[in-house]
Amino acid sequence: MAESQNMQGIAIVGCGIVGSSVAKILSRDHSMLQARVTTSFSLVKIVDINFDRAKSLGLDETLFEKNLESVLKNPSIHCVVELVGGTTFAKEVIERSLNAGKHVVTANKALLAHHGNELLALARKNNVVLAFEASCAGGIPVIRALYDGLLANRIDALFGIVNGTCNYILTQMTLHGKTYETALSEAQKKGFAEADPTLDVSGGDSAHKLAILAALAFGQKINLDAVDVTGIDQLELCDVMYGMDLGYVMKLLAISIRQDGGITLAVKPSFISREHPLAWVSGPFNAVSIYGHATGHTMYYGRGAGGDPTASAVISDILSVVNGSARASFFGCTIWPDIADASRAMPVSEPVSRFYIRVMASDEPGVLAGIASILAKYGISISSVLQKEKDPDADMPEAVPVLITTYPARQNSVLEAIREVDELAVVQSKSVCINIIDEHPEWKHHKTQS
Amino acid sequence: MAESQNMQGIAIVGCGIVGSSVAKILSRDHSMLQARVTTSFSLVKIVDINFDRAKSLGLDETLFEKNLESVLKNPSIHCVVELVGGTTFAKEVIERSLNAGKHVVTANKALLAHHGNELLALARKNNVVLAFEASCAGGIPVIRALYDGLLANRIDALFGIVNGTCNYILTQMTLHGKTYETALSEAQKKGFAEADPTLDVSGGDSAHKLAILAALAFGQKINLDAVDVTGIDQLELCDVMYGMDLGYVMKLLAISIRQDGGITLAVKPSFISREHPLAWVSGPFNAVSIYGHATGHTMYYGRGAGGDPTASAVISDILSVVNGSARASFFGCTIWPDIADASRAMPVSEPVSRFYIRVMASDEPGVLAGIASILAKYGISISSVLQKEKDPDADMPEAVPVLITTYPARQNSVLEAIREVDELAVVQSKSVCINIIDEHPEWKHHKTQS
Repeated sequence: MAESQNMQGIAIVGCGIVGSSVAKILSRDHSMLQARVTTSFSLVKIVDINFDRAKSLGLDETLFEKNLESVLKNPSIHCVVELVGGTTFAKEVIERSLNAGKHVVTANKALLAHHGNELLALARKNNVVLAFEASCAGGIPVIRALYDGLLANRIDALFGIVNGTCNYILTQMTLHGKTYETALSEAQKKGFAEADPTLDVSGGDSAHKLAILAALAFGQKINLDAVDVTGIDQLELCDVMYGMDLGYVMKLLAISIRQDGGITLAVKPSFISREHPLAWVSGPFNAVSIYGHATGHTMYYGRGAGGDPTASAVISDILSVVNGSARASFFGCTIWPDIADASRAMPVSEPVSRFYIRVMASDEPGVLAGIASILAKYGISISSVLQKEKDPDADMPEAVPVLITTYPARQNSVLEAIREVDELAVVQSKSVCINIIDEHPEWKHHKTQS
Repeated sequence: MAESQNMQGIAIVGCGIVGSSVAKILSRDHSMLQARVTTSFSLVKIVDINFDRAKSLGLDETLFEKNLESVLKNPSIHCVVELVGGTTFAKEVIERSLNAGKHVVTANKALLAHHGNELLALARKNNVVLAFEASCAGGIPVIRALYDGLLANRIDALFGIVNGTCNYILTQMTLHGKTYETALSEAQKKGFAEADPTLDVSGGDSAHKLAILAALAFGQKINLDAVDVTGIDQLELCDVMYGMDLGYVMKLLAISIRQDGGITLAVKPSFISREHPLAWVSGPFNAVSIYGHATGHTMYYGRGAGGDPTASAVISDILSVVNGSARASFFGCTIWPDIADASRAMPVSEPVSRFYIRVMASDEPGVLAGIASILAKYGISISSVLQKEKDPDADMPEAVPVLITTYPARQNSVLEAIREVDELAVVQSKSVCINIIDEHPEWKHHKTQS
C-alpha cells in the first residue's frame, strides 16, 4: 500500500500533563485526525522513564519506550514531539532529534526563549521543521497568525495576557477585592498556580512568551535579555481598586510596541482601558492583541495552559508537519528568528507611555504643588489628579493617596521624577508607578477607518 | 537570475474598495512583503473597466488592464485575485482563471456560499488553489484557524458576530437606547451601513459566512439553504433592554452547533450572557467563538470589513499561495467542502436552546397561569418569570409585558406553544421569542477543566 510506505511516525518524548494529553488524543481520536490529512501518520512511541500517568490514561503499553536512542535511530519515526520541559535534557532531545533528521514539535517556551535562534537554525541546517505553536498561549493559534494569517501586515504593537496564573490572581483582586496573598493562595488550591509560583508571578514565564511572539511579530531574533520584566508579586490591592475608579483594569501585560525605529519589550502590571477587549479577559484565560498596519486590531483568545488545550496546539503542529504546510511556511517564509535581523529592542529606559502614579503624602498644604513642580521639571504633563480623603482603616492612616495620571512620557523621566518626589519631606512611602495602555496603536495609523 | 524565472505574477480583477486596498498595499509595501517570502512575486495587472479609484490612489497606470482575456492568457500571471463581488461575472472570472491554471484568491462570500463546492472542485481538478480567508470576518484569520490552527479538534460549536453593520446597530440600541430605525439611519450616515442595507440587516450576509465557516468547522459541504435566517430588522428596543435587565446582550449570531449527530445552522438575533466574550464585541467589530474538544473555547476578534482589513486577509492568502503553504493545506488536508461529506444540517425545527419569550397581556388575574399551563403542555420548563408593571408611555399602555425565560427546549415546541399562547384572549399582540445562548458548549466536555 502506497500510503503505508509514506507513513509518518510520531514519537512523544516526555509524558507529563501535556505529553499524556497529546498521546491520549492521538490514540483515541486517531481515525478522526487521520481522516483530515492525506498522508498517513501514527503515534509510534512515547518516551519517558515514568509511565504512571500514561498507564492511568489506559494508553497502549506497546508504545512505551525508555530509550531515546532507539527512537532517534528508528527510521519510521519522522517527527519527535518534545514535551520534557526545562532547558537541559529538552535541549538535548531537540538537538539530537534535529540532527537525526526528525522534524520537532515543542511546547517549550523557556527553551525557545533562551535557545530558539540556534535550535531553529539547526532545524534549517538539517532540512527539517521546528514547530512551536504550543509554546505561547496554549491552545490559541497565535504563532500561526503571525507567520501566516497576518503575514501581509507590518505589526505595530502586540499586547498579551499570556500567563493564566497571573490573570487568575488579578481577576480575583479586581472583581472580588482580594489581596494578592489571598488570591495566590486560592489559585494554588484550585490548581491555577504552582506550589512555587515564582516563574509565573515574577513575570518570567510571560517574558519567555513575549520574546518568542515579538520575534515573529517584528521579524527579529529572539532576545529574552531585552525584556524589561516586572511581576505581580509586589502589587497592592489599593492600586487595582484606584485604577478601576479611573476606568482601568489591571493586567499583567506582555508588551511590544514599534517605537522610534526600535521595539519596546516589557512585561509589567499595566492599567488597560476598560473599553479594550483585553480588559474583559478573566480568570485563567489568555489573549493576545495584535495591531497590524492593514488589519488594525485583531485579538486571539482562549486557554493558555492545561493538557488538552496545549495538546490542541501540539497536534495541529503535528498535522501541519504531516501535510507539508509547516515545511512550506518554515522554508518559504523568512520571518523566523534564526534567519531574521538582530533584535532592535529599545533600552528599557526609553518606552513612552502614560503612567499612573500614587504618592502617599501628609495631608498638609503645598503637597500637590511640590509634586507637580517636580513632574513639570521633568517635562511630564499631568492628565488627571485625584487626591483621596484620609482612610482611618488604611495601613498608613495619616497619609493621603494622591493619584496622578500623566500624558505620554518617557519611562526614565517618570522614574527619575518619582525618585525626586519620594525625597520630599511630606512623602511618607515609596510612590507607586504603573503604566497605562489606553492609546490604541491603530489610532495612529487608522484614523480614517473605524 | 533564478528568482525572476520563478517570479509569481499576481493579477487583481475588480478595483473597488477592497481591490484598490490590495493594489495599494502590494505596490506601496512590496519590498516589505517580498522580504517575508523566499519566492519572488509581483503585482502584474489590475483588471477593471473603471480605474477612477485606482488613479486617485496614485497606482501605477501601467498596471491597468481592461481585458480579462489577456490576463488569462498571460503565462507570467500565476494567481488571480477576484474582487469583483456578486455571483455572476465573479463566477466567470474564477472559473476561467482556474481553468487557465491560475490560483485564485477571493473575498466573495456570496459566491462561495452559493457555489463554493463546485468552485473548490474545479480548483482541485486544475491542480491549483482557491483561497478565501477574506470571505469571512474580514481581517480576522479565522478560516486558517479552522483548516490549520484548530485542525486537532472536533469542533462542537461555532458562534459568530460576522456582520459589522448589524453589530454596530445593535451596539447603538444596547448602549445608547436607540431604536432600530434611528440606529440604522446613523449607521448609514457613518458609512457602516449601505444605502440599501437589506442583505446585512436581513441576516443574509451572515448566512453566507456561516455556511462557509460551518462547512470547514464541521467538515461538510457548504449548504446555504440549510441556514435558518432571521434578521435584526424586526427587533424592538424594549426586548434589547429587557434582555439587559436579565443579564443578556442582544447580538445577531451566526450559530452552528453539533447536536444529535447533526449540525444546527442558524443566523438570528440572540441573547448571549453578559459574561461571554462575544457580548463585549461592539461597534463594527466581528468575532468568532469556536469550541473545540481539545482547545475548549477560543475566540478571534477584529474588523470584519473595510478595504485594508479585508486586504490583509487577501494578501496573506496571496503570500500563502506564493510560499506554497496554501497548496500544502489545500491538497494535504481533507476538510475542504468539495471533498467533504454532505451537509448534516438538522431541520430548522430541531435546535434545542433556551428561549426568552415576551407576551403582552392584559393586566388581569390568571394570565400567568394560562401561559404557564400552555408551556407545560409542550413540555417547556420555565426558568424565570418577570412581569413588568404597566408603562403608560409604551405603545400598548394597557398591556403588561410578561417576560419568561425557559430551560433548554426544542425550537419547534416553543414556537408551537407561543402560537397557542397568542390565541389566549388576554394576549394583546404577537409574542416575541428570542433564543438565549448561555450554556457554553465546552462545559459539556470540559467539566473537569477550567
